[in-house]
Amino acid sequence: MANEPQQKLEQLKQRLAEVWDLNQALWVLEWDQATYMPDAGGAGRGRVMATLTSLAHEKFSDAEIGHLLDALQPWAETLPYDDPQAALVRVTRRAYEKTVRVPTAFAAAFAEHRAGTYQGWVEARPANNFARVRDGLERTLDFSRQYADFFPGYEHPADPLIDEADYGMKAQTVRALFTQLQEALTPLVTAITAQREADEEPLHRGFPADVQRAFGEAVITDFGFDFNRGRQDLTHHPFCSRFNTGDVRITTRFREDDLGDGLFSTLHESGHAMYELGVNPEFDGTPLGSGTSAGVHESQSRTWENLVGRSRGFWEHYYPKLQATFPGKLDDVSLYQFYRAINKVQRSLIRVDADEVTYNLHVIIRFGLELDMLEGNLAIRDLPEEWGARYEKALGVTPPEDRLGVLQDVHWYSAPIGGVFQGYTLGNIMSATFYNAALAAHPEIPNQIRQGQFGTLHGWLRDNIYHHGSVFTADELVQRITGAPLSIDPYLAYLRGKYGELYSLPA
Amino acid sequence: MANEPQQKLEQLKQRLAEVWDLNQALWVLEWDQATYMPDAGGAGRGRVMATLTSLAHEKFSDAEIGHLLDALQPWAETLPYDDPQAALVRVTRRAYEKTVRVPTAFAAAFAEHRAGTYQGWVEARPANNFARVRDGLERTLDFSRQYADFFPGYEHPADPLIDEADYGMKAQTVRALFTQLQEALTPLVTAITAQREADEEPLHRGFPADVQRAFGEAVITDFGFDFNRGRQDLTHHPFCSRFNTGDVRITTRFREDDLGDGLFSTLHESGHAMYELGVNPEFDGTPLGSGTSAGVHESQSRTWENLVGRSRGFWEHYYPKLQATFPGKLDDVSLYQFYRAINKVQRSLIRVDADEVTYNLHVIIRFGLELDMLEGNLAIRDLPEEWGARYEKALGVTPPEDRLGVLQDVHWYSAPIGGVFQGYTLGNIMSATFYNAALAAHPEIPNQIRQGQFGTLHGWLRDNIYHHGSVFTADELVQRITGAPLSIDPYLAYLRGKYGELYSLPA
Repeated sequence: MANEPQQKLEQLKQRLAEVWDLNQALWVLEWDQATYMPDAGGAGRGRVMATLTSLAHEKFSDAEIGHLLDALQPWAETLPYDDPQAALVRVTRRAYEKTVRVPTAFAAAFAEHRAGTYQGWVEARPANNFARVRDGLERTLDFSRQYADFFPGYEHPADPLIDEADYGMKAQTVRALFTQLQEALTPLVTAITAQREADEEPLHRGFPADVQRAFGEAVITDFGFDFNRGRQDLTHHPFCSRFNTGDVRITTRFREDDLGDGLFSTLHESGHAMYELGVNPEFDGTPLGSGTSAGVHESQSRTWENLVGRSRGFWEHYYPKLQATFPGKLDDVSLYQFYRAINKVQRSLIRVDADEVTYNLHVIIRFGLELDMLEGNLAIRDLPEEWGARYEKALGVTPPEDRLGVLQDVHWYSAPIGGVFQGYTLGNIMSATFYNAALAAHPEIPNQIRQGQFGTLHGWLRDNIYHHGSVFTADELVQRITGAPLSIDPYLAYLRGKYGELYSLPA
Repeated sequence: MANEPQQKLEQLKQRLAEVWDLNQALWVLEWDQATYMPDAGGAGRGRVMATLTSLAHEKFSDAEIGHLLDALQPWAETLPYDDPQAALVRVTRRAYEKTVRVPTAFAAAFAEHRAGTYQGWVEARPANNFARVRDGLERTLDFSRQYADFFPGYEHPADPLIDEADYGMKAQTVRALFTQLQEALTPLVTAITAQREADEEPLHRGFPADVQRAFGEAVITDFGFDFNRGRQDLTHHPFCSRFNTGDVRITTRFREDDLGDGLFSTLHESGHAMYELGVNPEFDGTPLGSGTSAGVHESQSRTWENLVGRSRGFWEHYYPKLQATFPGKLDDVSLYQFYRAINKVQRSLIRVDADEVTYNLHVIIRFGLELDMLEGNLAIRDLPEEWGARYEKALGVTPPEDRLGVLQDVHWYSAPIGGVFQGYTLGNIMSATFYNAALAAHPEIPNQIRQGQFGTLHGWLRDNIYHHGSVFTADELVQRITGAPLSIDPYLAYLRGKYGELYSLPA
């Protein structure tokens, strides 16, 4: 009898491992689809992915998992909150109770529908043809609302979707944070764009892709990304994919006429990857074995991309190396000119190319559109026009064509409408929060970065965030690390400090 | 009632599609493991593959598939033998009845064991350390015999294993064919090696890998390999993998000091791939949707590699192109010298590097060792020594180390012992059989090949072999195409003709 909880826990882990094995196979298939799959393989691939999605959903919804969780609950409650076994029961129950509400047939049909809209978007975007994807998007909106309706009692139909990516967050909370942020950012953008523009011409001088790639991979090796446990490949849209504790992969792309595009994508994705590679390997094959939320994940990609990778201290070390890597290309560009170029603030149309200051306005526009669509206040057919109107209002620019507007992001064409974009800005907000805590614990970090040393920062992030996997929610992590709930203040202070100096704004 | 067979057939197809989806996922995972997976990903990957193997086996063993087959049998028997629906019922039943005899737990345990021995072999081979894999191989032999014992009543324990790859073949039949062949090949090798050796020095002059790759890919594009439906990547051991009708991939490797190695691997694997790409797409996701046996598959890889790719006519077209591809490298080498170099016959140690004449002796040695191991007449601990003794006897060479002997091939370390090697030589025998039939139907083929045109040959092979997938067994295909059972005569005539002329042997 004394061993009964351990036996049941083993049974639970075996079942979870089977589900996660199916998920791992799915992630490999997705990675392959984005990297190496020949075009004609798409149809057959879509069917396989629907089958695996369906099997994983069916196996995770098995009533026996519920019985095991019920049997383990009293025992788990006797353990400390942060005990990994208690966390396994707690986090598995949370995921299980959401999964059983969604019928397997719905999950499979929605997955297959999204595979179709994704293929449609791949054709529609270069052809600038929103009509090509409009009907599919209508159905995605229906599916997204139906998904929400499996969770009756929500305050807002976006809540169950947001909960999937950023557990515990609600549309209302996010909207409040975003409103605060927008009110602070709008005058900051106005003040900056009234100053002399940064000159980004040096970034467009033509840099061979393979040399860019080698440089970026050397930098993330310095960060601590382990190429024995991961790799980098080329895709149209950069992403990070965890298969298991020994296999976490990132992708990027290079434009020879834009040095920043590939390099900062590499740094960004390496942040996601180091988070996954730092998770306690004992959690592999369970719901604990991955980063805890979209927001916390993005906080780490943005830390390594921006707080580290676009900082002046970082480039004090790396700029001479960059100059030597591209002989003759940047000889006439000073460190400070380069630092200004990679931090140029401008009102622009494309989210992924946006600077740190305007980036969140792009996200806030999308988040607002999602809420309106889910509320039924914005029809898909009116989306392109409304997109344009909101860009004009928030950023003072209007997309001349849908390719530069509503067709630019893959998300609505490959994921539900709702639940994805908020994570980007929550991540930005959290990045400064966590980074400040690391600096408070180790004031030597900025000096180390100036010397190309990242062990102390990486170690602090690993011990305080990465290692825990999904043991703690985003809110719990913020509370444990800062002793307070999430606030936009550290992030705003960071932006105001950095860009105030860069653009000589009054303090 | 009239539609009942169609409804049951649909139900059957749905179940088969689910099984084949799991298989497709497995094949992608295997391909990824061999091509791009980082080293540390192996452990987690092995577990996923065992899970999918187990699920696929379990789902294909489902009694409902047996019920559907029983219900469909009377209707299927009213259809012509070559009707695809009749074939689907017939071929599915054959595979089903074999699968249900093997417990799922056994299939999963054997698959996981082989993943382990494969990893062991990856380390053992370069380290020349047979002891590292000996215990694993003992267990593989146990597993292989246990597998056979699920099919009581066999004449030879190798029969159930051979039947998996070359349906209908038995150890006794194969042994008889191989004895005949060896008796004919041994004096041929003696006669050839008494003549002046061919000079293969020109192949070792240093050829950049990426240029080799581009040349080989251009050739197989001419063959009719469609890069929109496939791709080529690099691995240590070349292979071909079918995922679905729009996604068939090959792999190869290049050695800059050996022009033949990569090029002929590419041509070889393209033959496997064109077979798979030529299968009737309607068979996708069923047991009909792939090549019918290991032997027939190998007949196609050898056709394109050897009968076409090592022929004089082929190089009349491609040798000037090859010379132009590597400027200055081959200027002093005549077409005939090159043709002799790529067809050099020699007594050697490594199967995959062997010429057409001695190759089968390598296979026959392995086949004999397998039979003896399965009979219990040869212990794993004595295998390296026995390997050496048989090489000395058959080929007059003894491996100085296990790396060049018993550790050279991946097969016993990743597959059962028994059932794999015979396909290579059966394939060689069949290649000449089928090729002769193609030439009889289209005497213009050799002239077309001399002009780099392969459409007639490819079309004949597609119509008479590829398109049928697994509708016909190897024996049935041979009988349909030649009107007689398989004979070694056409193959021997081919070897004697080609090498008699190359080495000026008396007729």
